[in-house]
Amino acid sequence: MDSIKVREIGSFHVGGQSVTLSGLPVREVRFAQTAPTAPPARFDPNGEFETGQMYVQFVRLAAPTRSLPLLMWHGGGLSGVTWETKPDGQPGWQDFFMRAGYDTYVSDAVERGRASWSRFPEIYPDEPVFRNKKDAWELFRIGPAYRGDAQARVAFAGGQFPVAAFDQFMKQNVPRWISSDAATQRAYDALVDKVCPCVVVAHSQGANFALQAALRAPAKVRALVLVEPAGAPDPARADISALARTPILYVWGDHLDAHPYWSQQVLPAVRRFHDAHRAAGAVSDWLDLPAAGLRGNSHLLMMDRSSDAVARMVDRWIVNHVP
Amino acid sequence: MDSIKVREIGSFHVGGQSVTLSGLPVREVRFAQTAPTAPPARFDPNGEFETGQMYVQFVRLAAPTRSLPLLMWHGGGLSGVTWETKPDGQPGWQDFFMRAGYDTYVSDAVERGRASWSRFPEIYPDEPVFRNKKDAWELFRIGPAYRGDAQARVAFAGGQFPVAAFDQFMKQNVPRWISSDAATQRAYDALVDKVCPCVVVAHSQGANFALQAALRAPAKVRALVLVEPAGAPDPARADISALARTPILYVWGDHLDAHPYWSQQVLPAVRRFHDAHRAAGAVSDWLDLPAAGLRGNSHLLMMDRSSDAVARMVDRWIVNHVP
Repeated sequence: MDSIKVREIGSFHVGGQSVTLSGLPVREVRFAQTAPTAPPARFDPNGEFETGQMYVQFVRLAAPTRSLPLLMWHGGGLSGVTWETKPDGQPGWQDFFMRAGYDTYVSDAVERGRASWSRFPEIYPDEPVFRNKKDAWELFRIGPAYRGDAQARVAFAGGQFPVAAFDQFMKQNVPRWISSDAATQRAYDALVDKVCPCVVVAHSQGANFALQAALRAPAKVRALVLVEPAGAPDPARADISALARTPILYVWGDHLDAHPYWSQQVLPAVRRFHDAHRAAGAVSDWLDLPAAGLRGNSHLLMMDRSSDAVARMVDRWIVNHVP
Repeated sequence: MDSIKVREIGSFHVGGQSVTLSGLPVREVRFAQTAPTAPPARFDPNGEFETGQMYVQFVRLAAPTRSLPLLMWHGGGLSGVTWETKPDGQPGWQDFFMRAGYDTYVSDAVERGRASWSRFPEIYPDEPVFRNKKDAWELFRIGPAYRGDAQARVAFAGGQFPVAAFDQFMKQNVPRWISSDAATQRAYDALVDKVCPCVVVAHSQGANFALQAALRAPAKVRALVLVEPAGAPDPARADISALARTPILYVWGDHLDAHPYWSQQVLPAVRRFHDAHRAAGAVSDWLDLPAAGLRGNSHLLMMDRSSDAVARMVDRWIVNHVP
């Protein structure tokens, strides 16, 4: 592997605020390894905590060749690991775009991964949901039918996802809350304010946050690459004219018709936004990978075997649309 | 900042296994942003999940000048962020040791950060604990007395922790479970098996895991740097002779007498291990920073203003003790 000249690797948390808990009962806990013979310690769950922050890790190059940094936002139930080494051990999109000459910012949204999360139901109102392997296999369009026996799982013929690495992929899944959208958006907005102008590459659930962030700060988010976006704002309730000079690329994998979530819910909603954005005079490109000759991509196309081929198309599009 | 030649930045999950949940009631959830107008979705919390894995991120240099990679293990209620950019925005120990010529592996233990965590009480038996600001301020020896009003917090005179960044530090705190030690140890053992020979630098709670990992794989863990270790195995129940050729450096900050947890519980337990290890003929060095002329370090000495000075001592010790 060629070496690469890096100026700085670093990280920070952004957003969030202090919150105070009171009235919870004190309990006794035993931190076993610290002092195996020690008596249980009195643990007071009350007090002050930080909540609502997100985590961001960056790699700044010694000599970036692309004009703007790339912010890489993950989807639902996942973290920034989405963009790192793929579950099959091959380099992922963070590596690709870093080597292509971008400064990269890979983040964990509020509640995910290194962003940390807060006690429920006292701070978060509800409990989190954990995606099981069957849901991931089918919803992420790795195949039409999941089986507990790994040998019996049915994948799409010609699919690009490395199915032998599916259980490895599941290790990077994290719990998610369905009550945290507003806090997540606030943290993303704070991130954009802190590090942009930039290009945002957002996957799945992250796409909606990216569109909202761009609508709020169109001078900062100079272009959007929405990778299998799981939703978009209702164009009737968004000021789409704010994005008239913001080019957007939508990237879609294969087999969207195989799951009604994509064909019946997501695609119509995103298409409405795309159409309205185009009608406002903007560049809005719809990259249907199978139609472009690249078949078999799953929802996780940055982890698919063909991830580099897709990344090259994305890079070319950015270079063409971001001065 | 000087640039640095990097061969690869990557990550992986290691350890863990599949677990199956059944019998939990199906519920309805509404993933609001995905499709605001869609009906609530049926969500089945049962099925198969991965549990017990940990997360590891590495930076491999084009031309490392140190003989072995450095594995950096965080303490309780924290994640690998411990080693990254400090809460005050200055470079931390990952940056220092990378620039000193080490390949670095920064990890999140089981349940922390990007390692993910599992549903409780069905998979983890208990609920997690969240450390509040008062506990962190006092236990981590930033000062003798915490106040909710940031201006009124009492720090140690001459302390090295950047107190203006304390709330920023609290953003990187993550929940912890007190039931997960065995799973955490298994994952650390799997990590050592995968990437060592190596030197392990472990902070606080991580030190006990590091000592156990070295006892199990003394040929792989070539040296240990225990930064403010929060515990050590009982030497009467450990085969310390296995570590007769494993040098260990203990690094201690200031004001250990200010909190009985350190002076009465931790220090006696760690000192017993240190004495038994020395009696077995091993190199076991006890670096008392105030005695060495460096005053005011907190428990979080890799985040203190003097972090580079301490890191230089650690690097020199490694170079002297690892061929």
